Amino acid sequence: MTSIIITIGDELLIGQIINTNQAWIGEHLNLINIRVARMLTVGDDMHAILGAFTEAWSRTDVVIVTGGLGPTHDDITRKAVCTFFGTEMAPHPEVRKQIESFLEQRGRPWNAAAEEQSFCPKSAEIFPNPVGTAAGLRFVRDGRYLFVMPGVPYEMKEMMTQSVIPFLAPRAGGQVIRRRTLKTSGVPESVLAERLGNIEEILQGASLAFLPSASGVRMRITVHAPTAGAADAEVARIEGRIRAKAGKSIFGVDDEELEQVVGRLLKERHLTIAVAESCTGGSIAARITSVSGSSDYFDRGVVTYSDASKTQLLGVHEEMISAHGAVSEPVARAMAEGIRRTAGTSIGISTTGIAGPTGGSAEKPVGLVYVGYADGKESFALKFRFGEGRNRVVERATSAALELVRRKLLKLDE
Amino acid sequence: MTSIIITIGDELLIGQIINTNQAWIGEHLNLINIRVARMLTVGDDMHAILGAFTEAWSRTDVVIVTGGLGPTHDDITRKAVCTFFGTEMAPHPEVRKQIESFLEQRGRPWNAAAEEQSFCPKSAEIFPNPVGTAAGLRFVRDGRYLFVMPGVPYEMKEMMTQSVIPFLAPRAGGQVIRRRTLKTSGVPESVLAERLGNIEEILQGASLAFLPSASGVRMRITVHAPTAGAADAEVARIEGRIRAKAGKSIFGVDDEELEQVVGRLLKERHLTIAVAESCTGGSIAARITSVSGSSDYFDRGVVTYSDASKTQLLGVHEEMISAHGAVSEPVARAMAEGIRRTAGTSIGISTTGIAGPTGGSAEKPVGLVYVGYADGKESFALKFRFGEGRNRVVERATSAALELVRRKLLKLDE
Repeated sequence: MTSIIITIGDELLIGQIINTNQAWIGEHLNLINIRVARMLTVGDDMHAILGAFTEAWSRTDVVIVTGGLGPTHDDITRKAVCTFFGTEMAPHPEVRKQIESFLEQRGRPWNAAAEEQSFCPKSAEIFPNPVGTAAGLRFVRDGRYLFVMPGVPYEMKEMMTQSVIPFLAPRAGGQVIRRRTLKTSGVPESVLAERLGNIEEILQGASLAFLPSASGVRMRITVHAPTAGAADAEVARIEGRIRAKAGKSIFGVDDEELEQVVGRLLKERHLTIAVAESCTGGSIAARITSVSGSSDYFDRGVVTYSDASKTQLLGVHEEMISAHGAVSEPVARAMAEGIRRTAGTSIGISTTGIAGPTGGSAEKPVGLVYVGYADGKESFALKFRFGEGRNRVVERATSAALELVRRKLLKLDE
Repeated sequence: MTSIIITIGDELLIGQIINTNQAWIGEHLNLINIRVARMLTVGDDMHAILGAFTEAWSRTDVVIVTGGLGPTHDDITRKAVCTFFGTEMAPHPEVRKQIESFLEQRGRPWNAAAEEQSFCPKSAEIFPNPVGTAAGLRFVRDGRYLFVMPGVPYEMKEMMTQSVIPFLAPRAGGQVIRRRTLKTSGVPESVLAERLGNIEEILQGASLAFLPSASGVRMRITVHAPTAGAADAEVARIEGRIRAKAGKSIFGVDDEELEQVVGRLLKERHLTIAVAESCTGGSIAARITSVSGSSDYFDRGVVTYSDASKTQLLGVHEEMISAHGAVSEPVARAMAEGIRRTAGTSIGISTTGIAGPTGGSAEKPVGLVYVGYADGKESFALKFRFGEGRNRVVERATSAALELVRRKLLKLDE
């Protein structure tokens, strides 16, 4: 099966928005063995949209369309599919009900936009939008399929995951593709590659991609095989070989995030944690609490930007701050000890550093960060140099703090 | 003048890489008044590439092609342009010299890849790649233009900026395009549209797009005019009309973020702020401190996940929590008062709510959030219903808290 992805929106053509939808859709179609033959973007223009539909429909099995389903005047995709399939808009009671319940749950009133979105092309099959008001449309003709979804990424993703992929997967058949991503944090790509050694010998025809970002390097294995069983076995074999060489650096797989792994380890061990942040400004707390159920192990965080707050909330002595500076190893350690003591948790972690772009000096340059750690047995702080870029420094420091906790919990450095 | 952007690469079709090139090129063509009619992505496949060239060349003035110029086996774009324009590859002494000097400067030896890249299509005009080895190709036929550049973003950007844009700008002539984005937070798209009323009457031929996200709705004005002066005046006229009807909801323009606006307002007024977060888990502090220089007005934040921490750090009475629950109007207010008092800041803000997906009940459903506010004169809490999706609830609550501070600082609700 082949597919063409059509994304609609003037904002894409003028470059105001980077088209993340088409990459996401491409990736997910690929995983169910539907090859993407092309991706096409056109503006909010009837002639251009109809041209794109005509071209795509004549040359592929599956057409995925996103964008232009909203209630405002520039959203004309529904009119375009009506024209293309020779049908017309009609009130759709089921969609109306979905929108009503969606608005009701949010305490929002019925309005003209909702009224308009409750109309759908007569000959379309409808699939629900669990997180928005624009319903999905599916047209089936002679074993070919055209899907229409909104362009809002999180709405599109929910609809792809809940409706489009489950509909298409059994119809796609053929070879099986499996992917698995092994995630690391705090180890450069070159060091990982060195640890793995002769990678072709490990892969034996499969492929491995190194995907670096500020929070760490992901290693993605891709395997093609005639059956699901063979593909899974091959992925397991390769993962085993990689783990034998770089297992300590791998914190999780696929969609697992470092904060989820740390959360699970804390929960399993019945431990609790509290955080004292300076340069990371709340990012560590935000990442820990992004995990549902984190209230089981996360007690509190403090963001002590002022020196006074470090003293008042964490008991860091003023003399220590004036002797060593707020960005220093002793202050990082005292912050970790202080938050652990005041919160009464098993573990305390802390950060203090210079996120930049201002505030750096020759002695303490932008990117210098200390990450502090305290538990019942020990306390210390590690020194890092995270380079430039305020957001990047914060992201790297946040990941370093979480990775430090993971390594301590698993006793990886002992 | 119109253009079509063709991006080539299997890695784009399988979603391994998000296509940032096409957005960047689209934006920069637009600013010299070249309208992008469509964007097309195809794989590293001769048939697909030739098909894309044929389609694009027959219907537009300018075709921009990126990708598939590298030295590896799957990069076949140069062969495709040879076939398309009926020419052949030949050694190109000037390109050879550029590559030699590029490698020499970096202390890298001449190799097979360099040798291959020193060949170019005979009938192409060449433009330099100042940061890589793959030269740019330009074909001119009957007043139409086709450009070929590598897909590596920083190479493409240098070549666009130094060669393609300067070549096209004087040929594009004609109209000037101006854009302006008015950003709002906390007002649904449909309500904004209603407030604006008859939008066509305001626009008089210009265009307005509503771009919603979890943090708010952006309204983007686009104006075409014969001169820069006329375009600027038209943008100003439309912005004035929109502000007259929805000015209070507009927190900033273009790249301005809500946290920057709030930061600037606090700084101008010599005010300070502290934050007490429960359900937002540190996100408000993280957004405030993402602004360089925020230490001037941000004193501290606390993330009080446990009831004990609300009592200990904020002085919220245990009895109040047990009487009303941690997610309640009185607790939100007491948290805002508490953080303001202990931090000694001008303003305190707070959040308490149910981010989900667990923890909701009929009475207090997922998405229920109270945002608390306290200053020297008053304290109160507002109730919100943010729907579902943990990250989305946090993002919306964070934006709502910042927007509340903005409105209070500007006395918009009085």
